Amino acid sequence: MQKDINISEVAKKAGVSIATVSRVFNNSGRVKESTRKKIQAIIEETGYRPNVLARELAEKKTHLIGMIVHSLTGEGLPRAINGVNQVLDENGYNLLIACSEGSFANEKKHFELFRLKRVDGIIFATRQFKPEHAEWIKKLPIPVVVLLQDTQEQEIPFVAFDNKRFAKEATKTLLEQGHQAVAYLGGPENSVNSAERKSGVEEALGEVGLQLDRELIGQGNYLIESGYNEMEKIIQKGKRFDSVIAVNDGMAIGALNCLQDHGFNIPNDVSVLGLDDTVLTQASRLKLSGVHYSYTDLGRQGADMLLRQIGQEEISFEKIMIPFEVKLRETVKNKEKG
Amino acid sequence: MQKDINISEVAKKAGVSIATVSRVFNNSGRVKESTRKKIQAIIEETGYRPNVLARELAEKKTHLIGMIVHSLTGEGLPRAINGVNQVLDENGYNLLIACSEGSFANEKKHFELFRLKRVDGIIFATRQFKPEHAEWIKKLPIPVVVLLQDTQEQEIPFVAFDNKRFAKEATKTLLEQGHQAVAYLGGPENSVNSAERKSGVEEALGEVGLQLDRELIGQGNYLIESGYNEMEKIIQKGKRFDSVIAVNDGMAIGALNCLQDHGFNIPNDVSVLGLDDTVLTQASRLKLSGVHYSYTDLGRQGADMLLRQIGQEEISFEKIMIPFEVKLRETVKNKEKG
Repeated sequence: MQKDINISEVAKKAGVSIATVSRVFNNSGRVKESTRKKIQAIIEETGYRPNVLARELAEKKTHLIGMIVHSLTGEGLPRAINGVNQVLDENGYNLLIACSEGSFANEKKHFELFRLKRVDGIIFATRQFKPEHAEWIKKLPIPVVVLLQDTQEQEIPFVAFDNKRFAKEATKTLLEQGHQAVAYLGGPENSVNSAERKSGVEEALGEVGLQLDRELIGQGNYLIESGYNEMEKIIQKGKRFDSVIAVNDGMAIGALNCLQDHGFNIPNDVSVLGLDDTVLTQASRLKLSGVHYSYTDLGRQGADMLLRQIGQEEISFEKIMIPFEVKLRETVKNKEKG
Repeated sequence: MQKDINISEVAKKAGVSIATVSRVFNNSGRVKESTRKKIQAIIEETGYRPNVLARELAEKKTHLIGMIVHSLTGEGLPRAINGVNQVLDENGYNLLIACSEGSFANEKKHFELFRLKRVDGIIFATRQFKPEHAEWIKKLPIPVVVLLQDTQEQEIPFVAFDNKRFAKEATKTLLEQGHQAVAYLGGPENSVNSAERKSGVEEALGEVGLQLDRELIGQGNYLIESGYNEMEKIIQKGKRFDSVIAVNDGMAIGALNCLQDHGFNIPNDVSVLGLDDTVLTQASRLKLSGVHYSYTDLGRQGADMLLRQIGQEEISFEKIMIPFEVKLRETVKNKEKG
């Protein structure tokens, strides 16, 4: 470890004034070539860097963006962070990430932290957007972009997936293949996204005069094991169903394994679809059907929006819904093929 | 968005001196209760926060840790970040993450960035530790802890998995079940971890007078699809093998799917083991065998080590190898059961 060194020590080593070192470092003003080389050698040797905190203090800009996420595991949010990172990188900004692990108290602490660290803007992802979140955000002197939640009512800029719409479209596609008795495996009760997906499924069924049978509904926690267990419970009830929609791929894979263990032929007896498109769709022997929407795109659009907001005097409301695509693969029975 | 406000504006609003506001904010010195309440109400209403940059500048401490990782996708590194985050959080530090996407140029930029941002320490994860990395690190006035690479020779503190040793143990376990003809699916050539795992497999074979047959070696890129393709190539060669070891779960799952598509009975005809223990082990119908090692633990130990280093005058060399456990599940034939 080298000792930290300041500008006056560099100047002393080189036998020049502080102003001369500063001119060399900032490439400003005239400095004799031999002096420049000498100073550059000392800078190289000592690893001296100007004190950026002091500069930031003067500029009132840190070029730092704070990002609060509820989770770093799973496939989605790391991809979103990647997308944010790419855009910030292209624009000379850096990213400070804080993970709330879904705790409201942590979120509060992280908003406070980023405020204290004087970030230039915040990207906020949460499982459930609460009135308190809106209050914190309105009080901040910097712009905030929300990911994954519709904050139109609060007039807070956001980028999200249209959960209800894509769940509805996926369900319609399934119904078009001739399915009629849909079992549904949902996520945790407190997840807004999960509730939206369920209501999309119900809406699609409602439009053709069907509805979700209470006996064919399971509620789990997104994990493969919980998909397996919820499917098991439904099978035990003995009620007939011709298709299963799961809130995410984990639960869909669990359901698929459970059905196969019970001797169901997929997709001839039962079709399976996850409202998701993760690496798990490739892991099962039968390629899982689902809905594709890009978390990388979500992150990129969120960062773009935030940088636009930073450039403005006042926050202007903006929203972006990321496009999606229903992907029928091997686990859904195709009407044409019979 | 609220206008940013400074301490003198708060003082003016409250009709008190700047020193009084400061005393209230820092909970220091005596302030009349009514004045304190009045100032607190204004602080609450305006969202005023003291300028921490100025304070950090005086203290020469930012309580920020920089973490450079080569990837944010996949299961491992996000977990390691989670582990780092937990420990830093418990100790009042915050985390600045930069993702190099495996590029050496980005890594250089990120070291520079963190130096400029005056972080108190750096946690560095990379696919390949180069002499230049050691040079950068030696020049820094702050401690660095390396993750996932053995930097003992360079005397740089590190926390890693003992890839060679766990690959060797896993292979020995497989051989103890009576397997003799091992096919091996490896990762990219430039990955040190991947090379170490392969050499562990070879060492275990060597100890019982066996060796890897060139015809039974595949080389892929960690993804499911590449495991499938590499397995396919080996099957086409028509050489007999009784087991497959893959460098990670993705490639093991790909191999498993490919073998099943070719009518192999797993594990009676062929056993499959991935040198890994991700969510994918649960996704296949047959639970995949593998080696468990905790990335969360890696991150936690790395952060602990860095905080210890920050507390010292000089860097002292330290190393930690994270423990592992071989997990035989449904894809490996058990000798006893026959």
